[in-house]
Amino acid sequence: MTTVHCLTPNPALDITYRVASMRLHAVNRVRDVEQRPGGKGVNVARVLSARGAPVATYGFLGGGAGDTLAGLLAEHAPGIVQRWTRVPAETRRTIAVVDETDTTMLNEPGRPVGPADWAALTEALAASCAPGDVVTISGSLPQGADGAVLAGLIRVVRSTGAAVLADTSGEALLTAADAGADVVKPNRDEILEATGASDVREGIGQLLARGCGAVVASLGSDGMILGGAEGFVSARLNRILRGNPTGAGDAAVAALAHGLALASPSHSRFGALSAALVDAVAWSAAAVLSPVAGEIDQAEAAQLTFDVLVQE
Amino acid sequence: MTTVHCLTPNPALDITYRVASMRLHAVNRVRDVEQRPGGKGVNVARVLSARGAPVATYGFLGGGAGDTLAGLLAEHAPGIVQRWTRVPAETRRTIAVVDETDTTMLNEPGRPVGPADWAALTEALAASCAPGDVVTISGSLPQGADGAVLAGLIRVVRSTGAAVLADTSGEALLTAADAGADVVKPNRDEILEATGASDVREGIGQLLARGCGAVVASLGSDGMILGGAEGFVSARLNRILRGNPTGAGDAAVAALAHGLALASPSHSRFGALSAALVDAVAWSAAAVLSPVAGEIDQAEAAQLTFDVLVQE
Repeated sequence: MTTVHCLTPNPALDITYRVASMRLHAVNRVRDVEQRPGGKGVNVARVLSARGAPVATYGFLGGGAGDTLAGLLAEHAPGIVQRWTRVPAETRRTIAVVDETDTTMLNEPGRPVGPADWAALTEALAASCAPGDVVTISGSLPQGADGAVLAGLIRVVRSTGAAVLADTSGEALLTAADAGADVVKPNRDEILEATGASDVREGIGQLLARGCGAVVASLGSDGMILGGAEGFVSARLNRILRGNPTGAGDAAVAALAHGLALASPSHSRFGALSAALVDAVAWSAAAVLSPVAGEIDQAEAAQLTFDVLVQE
Repeated sequence: MTTVHCLTPNPALDITYRVASMRLHAVNRVRDVEQRPGGKGVNVARVLSARGAPVATYGFLGGGAGDTLAGLLAEHAPGIVQRWTRVPAETRRTIAVVDETDTTMLNEPGRPVGPADWAALTEALAASCAPGDVVTISGSLPQGADGAVLAGLIRVVRSTGAAVLADTSGEALLTAADAGADVVKPNRDEILEATGASDVREGIGQLLARGCGAVVASLGSDGMILGGAEGFVSARLNRILRGNPTGAGDAAVAALAHGLALASPSHSRFGALSAALVDAVAWSAAAVLSPVAGEIDQAEAAQLTFDVLVQE
């Protein structure tokens, strides 16, 4: 059975504080504290693990906040194999202060990680990947990481016969395409901003020309478009949903990785992605309907696949 | 050599975030994160350890935040022997968000601690205390602790021949006096609020009548007053200082505990406290001049003793 390896280079301990009414420049007593394992790749892993798929997580973890993250993940999703690379720098926290009006966010910066830590992470991935496995790379890089370390990691993973699916933005999106990632998954803003293209299809063409195998661009309520050497396929839900879009992109990455991991080696990768695009739209929609990133209702996701319209 | 055992029932990991300008109901990027081991008893231990005095810390510690606190304390004050009682509940955090205008505080509640944890803490203290040692008890109790557990702990500690110095407020101040604490150290507001007395000397009389050996009341810029069966002694600095009063009370507790621990057993306890009152005023003053609670300039503290006026 093939495994999906979910890399979160910059994970976070997500903390929610409930207060009566948040006051600036005053002392606020927190009524209630909730903690969750956070980071885009962690969400991808949780969605897959909830389906019973073999999944492992990777990334940099450090300090007491890192230990708490790993402990919470083991509790919420015991099926996930945790293969974190331990670093001295404490894992960043995000704090959401929720009062009766709205939410105030405090986001810590990711602490810098050194070249030896990147080497250890690459080694951990290479040691675990088998041909046919899929490696997802999600979210931002820690401070001070340059493109070379990401490109090196992608090349090493691909040399094991595993496929790479990168959900990154900015320079890291271009780096992933240049390094030959099998799939990159930007959203509309990310693809236009990174490539400077004036429309999404032009941006997809630019990324393919750089060297990635396929591009899946997520377009919010307009669904998703897959582009590759074989052409374009697009899919969208037959209606517009209201809800919480946080985690929708991660659910889409989970569906695409799942499709790639299940595809027979004789199957064309574009064909597998094209089939997975329906799940990607449906799982994203289920994530929009879920109050919590990283958790989707599996029955709802399955039901939503019947409401996806595909256009070749 | 006698040891001072510093108990912090409700320690905290103190986190400081620096942001450009804190905005309510928006996303704030934290520029810089600092973490410090926090809690009043931790401050007492740090002041004593910086003087080279034998000191150990006790209290409840849990989760990743607890591990981080213990790690930071080992780094900042390697001389302190850490004898925490580990509990499942994560240690509370306090977050100070500092921007160019002022500070916004977010204080987590202390998580509840069970009777078995209190029993383990009492046992850890009893096993370490020797006659002539001093146990300081500083700050609030965790959620759900009733007076009985504190009273039981004080009686067990006193049965070892160690002296108890309690810096608590509200019900816990009355409980400490009732349980026969050797010294209680409320501030002016705390003594008036807990006893309902109309002035400090009347409040001191009420606490002595309940059963404690002596009372040291701290009166801010009016100095301190010691009351016992032998009468009253007061001490104050010969001038008013401006600075940061956080940690001043903890420095006073450190000085009083130090005085008690150094006193010969044949010396009267009131005499030892009366002599230590000068240091208590001087160390408090040094704490007011220090930007950070738990850290005082030892040379400055020694110099300030010459500026203390005593009135019997």
